Amino acid sequence: MPENDLHYLTISEASSHIKSGRLSPVELVNAHLERIEQTDDRLNSFVTLLADQAKAAAATAEAEIRSGNYRGVLHGIPIGLKDLYYTEGIRTTVGSKIMGDFVPDYDAAVTERFADAGAILLGKLQMHEFALGATSENPHQGPAHNPWDTSRITGGSSGGSGSAVASGQCMAALGSDTGGSVRIPASACGIVGHKPTFGRISRVGVFPLSNSLDTVGPMTRSVTDAAIVMNAIAGYDERDQSCANRPDEDFTRLLGKDIAGLRIGIPQEYFYEMIDEEVRVAVLQAASKLEELGARVEECSIPVLNDSISISGTILLTEAAEIHLDNLRERADDFGADVRGRLEEGAMNPAVTYIAAQRARTEFNRAIAESMKTYDILLAPTTAAPAPKIGEDIVEVGGQTEHKLALMPRLTRPHNICGIPTVSVPCGFSSDGLPIGMQLAARPFEDALALQVAYAYEQATDWHTRRPPV
Amino acid sequence: MPENDLHYLTISEASSHIKSGRLSPVELVNAHLERIEQTDDRLNSFVTLLADQAKAAAATAEAEIRSGNYRGVLHGIPIGLKDLYYTEGIRTTVGSKIMGDFVPDYDAAVTERFADAGAILLGKLQMHEFALGATSENPHQGPAHNPWDTSRITGGSSGGSGSAVASGQCMAALGSDTGGSVRIPASACGIVGHKPTFGRISRVGVFPLSNSLDTVGPMTRSVTDAAIVMNAIAGYDERDQSCANRPDEDFTRLLGKDIAGLRIGIPQEYFYEMIDEEVRVAVLQAASKLEELGARVEECSIPVLNDSISISGTILLTEAAEIHLDNLRERADDFGADVRGRLEEGAMNPAVTYIAAQRARTEFNRAIAESMKTYDILLAPTTAAPAPKIGEDIVEVGGQTEHKLALMPRLTRPHNICGIPTVSVPCGFSSDGLPIGMQLAARPFEDALALQVAYAYEQATDWHTRRPPV
Repeated sequence: MPENDLHYLTISEASSHIKSGRLSPVELVNAHLERIEQTDDRLNSFVTLLADQAKAAAATAEAEIRSGNYRGVLHGIPIGLKDLYYTEGIRTTVGSKIMGDFVPDYDAAVTERFADAGAILLGKLQMHEFALGATSENPHQGPAHNPWDTSRITGGSSGGSGSAVASGQCMAALGSDTGGSVRIPASACGIVGHKPTFGRISRVGVFPLSNSLDTVGPMTRSVTDAAIVMNAIAGYDERDQSCANRPDEDFTRLLGKDIAGLRIGIPQEYFYEMIDEEVRVAVLQAASKLEELGARVEECSIPVLNDSISISGTILLTEAAEIHLDNLRERADDFGADVRGRLEEGAMNPAVTYIAAQRARTEFNRAIAESMKTYDILLAPTTAAPAPKIGEDIVEVGGQTEHKLALMPRLTRPHNICGIPTVSVPCGFSSDGLPIGMQLAARPFEDALALQVAYAYEQATDWHTRRPPV
Repeated sequence: MPENDLHYLTISEASSHIKSGRLSPVELVNAHLERIEQTDDRLNSFVTLLADQAKAAAATAEAEIRSGNYRGVLHGIPIGLKDLYYTEGIRTTVGSKIMGDFVPDYDAAVTERFADAGAILLGKLQMHEFALGATSENPHQGPAHNPWDTSRITGGSSGGSGSAVASGQCMAALGSDTGGSVRIPASACGIVGHKPTFGRISRVGVFPLSNSLDTVGPMTRSVTDAAIVMNAIAGYDERDQSCANRPDEDFTRLLGKDIAGLRIGIPQEYFYEMIDEEVRVAVLQAASKLEELGARVEECSIPVLNDSISISGTILLTEAAEIHLDNLRERADDFGADVRGRLEEGAMNPAVTYIAAQRARTEFNRAIAESMKTYDILLAPTTAAPAPKIGEDIVEVGGQTEHKLALMPRLTRPHNICGIPTVSVPCGFSSDGLPIGMQLAARPFEDALALQVAYAYEQATDWHTRRPPV
């Protein structure tokens, strides 16, 4: 196999070569480290690069596999972790100055699960400070740059995860998604991002943003790879009280199955009130493609979607403020300005406002559940516009102007409120050559169904075969 | 059967007579209406008496049963409902002036389930205003009086339910339990009160006090009767998002089974720091009795119990304040002074304080769950003292003084925080002739186990055979 292609293999491709002995983890890891060396001065994906450890782990994996101890599809696969996943003995900054020297003494549950599966950690990935922001413009560690146009943001908060996977620096990364932080950079960088059902993956050792909204999610270059990562990291963990006690499942089980007859609803409220025309058209064309594939696609109405910002904003900022109360008192100047301002805003909320938002959330969830009695899948654009420029705060979208920090998570918030599984998958490119993504959401714990539909669409289109110019 | 005994039959006794035709629902209902007429000027249990409707329903039940359509153990059984359960077309005041004229246009889920089972509603029962208080001293509708000593409170907030069941005015009543409002009046009135696992019973049509703490629970004169009522009212309701989606079960299934070998823990923290000596001795004697019956009784340590008041107080008052925000703005003078003051206190809490309490609750729950890996049952006194006098706010308990409103729910709050099923069962009398109760708590959804142990204790003692002097 030609060496210059290695960093753009999918996990499913690479793993079949590794399993058969045609490809060594050492070769694969070296190709990725080389790719990082060639690109990361322009992308700034990595906060902490673990080149030596990764090489050593690759050698170990190679030896294990040679001696017949192949662990499975992630054995020898190079991955990256957003810098809020605890890594024992390895600095975990959470994108902040405040935790700039923090070295956890234990691994996150998902760090451990990747290690058990034989995946090889290349390093820790850049993020918006404390995950509170969707641009990944980080005042302490610099912005992540979009591989499709390095003058643009990657989306956030899992910005480094987006650029690293899209540019072939690693084969998969974990993001975390509280208001869209997996799906936004996936969309902005032209890759797949899966926000699982709330409670499907353990959050032990994940630095929190908002306890009632946070989820762990894979970012990959194919839908199959997202399902493969889900298989490794999802599952019950009794240490995490938010974690659902459900049996393990195979998230690849529906991939390739016919989607004929599945009912897909396109909610008419909220998603199209402030939207880039090219994004709107791309999503509608994707809907037509799904219809060609046999799905029954219909417009639908879910008026509570209009409450998304007030519900998500209140809950997210208030829960985040509670986590950072001590930092706000003692180290306020060590926050970036946008993060400090929003935390201070959250800290001032009265409890009755927060409870009213949680109550509205219950109504919101009821309405979504009601709608999903009719629709198997809800389809929407992931972001209202392709990636804006780094450093430009105010963005024009469909004739309106909006601050980037409000614009970017606007369309991803609803799915966090109700916790339903949602896959963002590439569905086109703007005239500027920037990726466009759409979201496919399924009922709680029907992650495999969302992945099935995303896969059917992916296989019927060639967006995922394009590579960024970086 | 002698007419003068009818009002003190248990449900299980009465139903066997009804089923066999030896007792008519008409006779049974009339006996209870007569008892109410004889006693309610002294007890003030009923806010709304439905004598005519009850007589008509009894005649219908009699006809149904005669024609062979016996519905089961609650058919023809006279019951009462705390005045926060919605009753279609029947005034539901929630103990308040503000809702003094409120007539719901639908039944609560449990109202409906009682009706489906053929139970006969005698009326709506007195309660502490808006269920926010544990004394049942209601400024709008007067206090409920304790049948064991009418100069004393019944405990609250389900005060009328306590006095009505204890005095033979009805065979069972529903209370609601947010910080102890089923168990406190059960203990103070010498009857059985079961606070089920949070989420086991639908709360549709139950006026809320605190959404994350409220539970619906039966109050009866025997453990068997509590299990019988649970069988009728427990079960999944998709309209209530807090309701657990679990199959129906028979809550009587463990009654009479040997408790030998069951592990009972007596937490040493919290429960005995401010306690009446007669209560302490009665509970320890009850523990010895359980040991005689074969249980393995041990002292245990759960230090987080000391956080009970701050967690429960913050969550309860803040959630309650959010529900009453409009009333606080528009009709503040129509609240009683104690309720208004506490709601205003809750309305001032910052959101971060509330969230910190919910976070502490998670830790609390984890510690309880850990302890219950060792113990099947946690045993404690239900209230720190027998029922205090009506109108005396400050009570002396074990050499300390405390306000009644803080004292009465002190020992029942922990079980609401973690949502575990808890039965209060009579375990003695004070030298003043006032009932004393103890609480038996089991793991989540092991309601039947808590009832099993309560039943074994009840059958081995004769506290439940005593009748109040009223």
